[in-house]
Amino acid sequence: MREIVEKRVLSENDRLAAGLRLRYHKQNILCVNFISSPGSGKTALLERTLASYTPAHSIAVLTGDIQTDNDARRLSQYGFPVRQIVTGGTCHLDARMVERHLNELGFCGPGVLLIENVGNLVCPSSYDLGEAAKIVLLSVTEGEDKPLKYPGIFHRAALMILTKTDLLPHVEFDPDLALENARKVNPEIEYIALSSRTGDGFDVWLHWLNALRHKAQHPAAAINS
Amino acid sequence: MREIVEKRVLSENDRLAAGLRLRYHKQNILCVNFISSPGSGKTALLERTLASYTPAHSIAVLTGDIQTDNDARRLSQYGFPVRQIVTGGTCHLDARMVERHLNELGFCGPGVLLIENVGNLVCPSSYDLGEAAKIVLLSVTEGEDKPLKYPGIFHRAALMILTKTDLLPHVEFDPDLALENARKVNPEIEYIALSSRTGDGFDVWLHWLNALRHKAQHPAAAINS
Repeated sequence: MREIVEKRVLSENDRLAAGLRLRYHKQNILCVNFISSPGSGKTALLERTLASYTPAHSIAVLTGDIQTDNDARRLSQYGFPVRQIVTGGTCHLDARMVERHLNELGFCGPGVLLIENVGNLVCPSSYDLGEAAKIVLLSVTEGEDKPLKYPGIFHRAALMILTKTDLLPHVEFDPDLALENARKVNPEIEYIALSSRTGDGFDVWLHWLNALRHKAQHPAAAINS
Repeated sequence: MREIVEKRVLSENDRLAAGLRLRYHKQNILCVNFISSPGSGKTALLERTLASYTPAHSIAVLTGDIQTDNDARRLSQYGFPVRQIVTGGTCHLDARMVERHLNELGFCGPGVLLIENVGNLVCPSSYDLGEAAKIVLLSVTEGEDKPLKYPGIFHRAALMILTKTDLLPHVEFDPDLALENARKVNPEIEYIALSSRTGDGFDVWLHWLNALRHKAQHPAAAINS
């Protein structure tokens, strides 16, 4: 019974996500969906990403949490439109939430939409938000085995970002082993290691995001709209 | 529709959990349920906890994961009965899984049952496993705001363990603020800070666990059975 309802929910979500994908296409919006454990550094990554652009660039952010608008407050100081989605207990964002908050945000593109999902390595991976890419974050304090233990999201993600590399000297963590484990689950997954605190590796990440818009072949989906 | 099914699932879980609670009572088993984000240090905490006892003590472990039996392999080297629960995609343990695996483990008490939940700060908090206490772990790399962002588990937990305190010199993290946030959600929550790597604070944790068995007032639920 539960499985039937879950299938129905996911099928309805897929229908709404297809609508979002069409909307992103029409409005030349490049959408990426950031997924990780709580505290892996999604908000810190977004903060430094936004700080790398001027408000003349066309970027918007939707940020999901069970409770609080802490992240939206942190992110809105960079001058870009930001909206908090408080799920009130739901462990993931779904396409309906994104659609509603995108309407309320009034972001019509062209540009880049960054979606920070609820901190959870499991549930968000099943919900298509119409994004061009899912990006999974893994911090160096979490252990190299996480791709094997939570294969769903590593299988679906286009990119794994290893975060908090400034802590590498202080933890027992082998980045090569983490990547090897991720590629066991998803041989195609791309990989960037960075520190949002020091900025190390950040140029590679910004280059990746820029390259994604070129791949999308919608010139107006450029960050420099 | 989905809410109705979820309520029915939780109500069925509560019924099974009540059965487990009765069983723990009859068999003088003290059961605690560890919940945290992936990579917060549940397995490391359990490893050092098991290493603090000799196999003459009566302790058993059930450890949950989406995939892999890595944790059971790590934990079984200490000579105690350990069983992996692979949920195969389900984001939490439920009372039915615990009942089945406890039967297969053949642990009849008296003693202590340590349950390591799936790494997830959201979903496991709603599922009663008949435990005497939920214990939430928060590592110093995750940020002080997590109790406010994930209030469900901090509200239900009897104890918050701050882990990885050996990393405090290398991160911006204020333990007092984390505790203040946890107590906003749950004024009664107890608090221990420790490092499973260095052992700092570990005596306080072992003392807490020992005190819990005394509170339970079932002498045979003692670790020293």
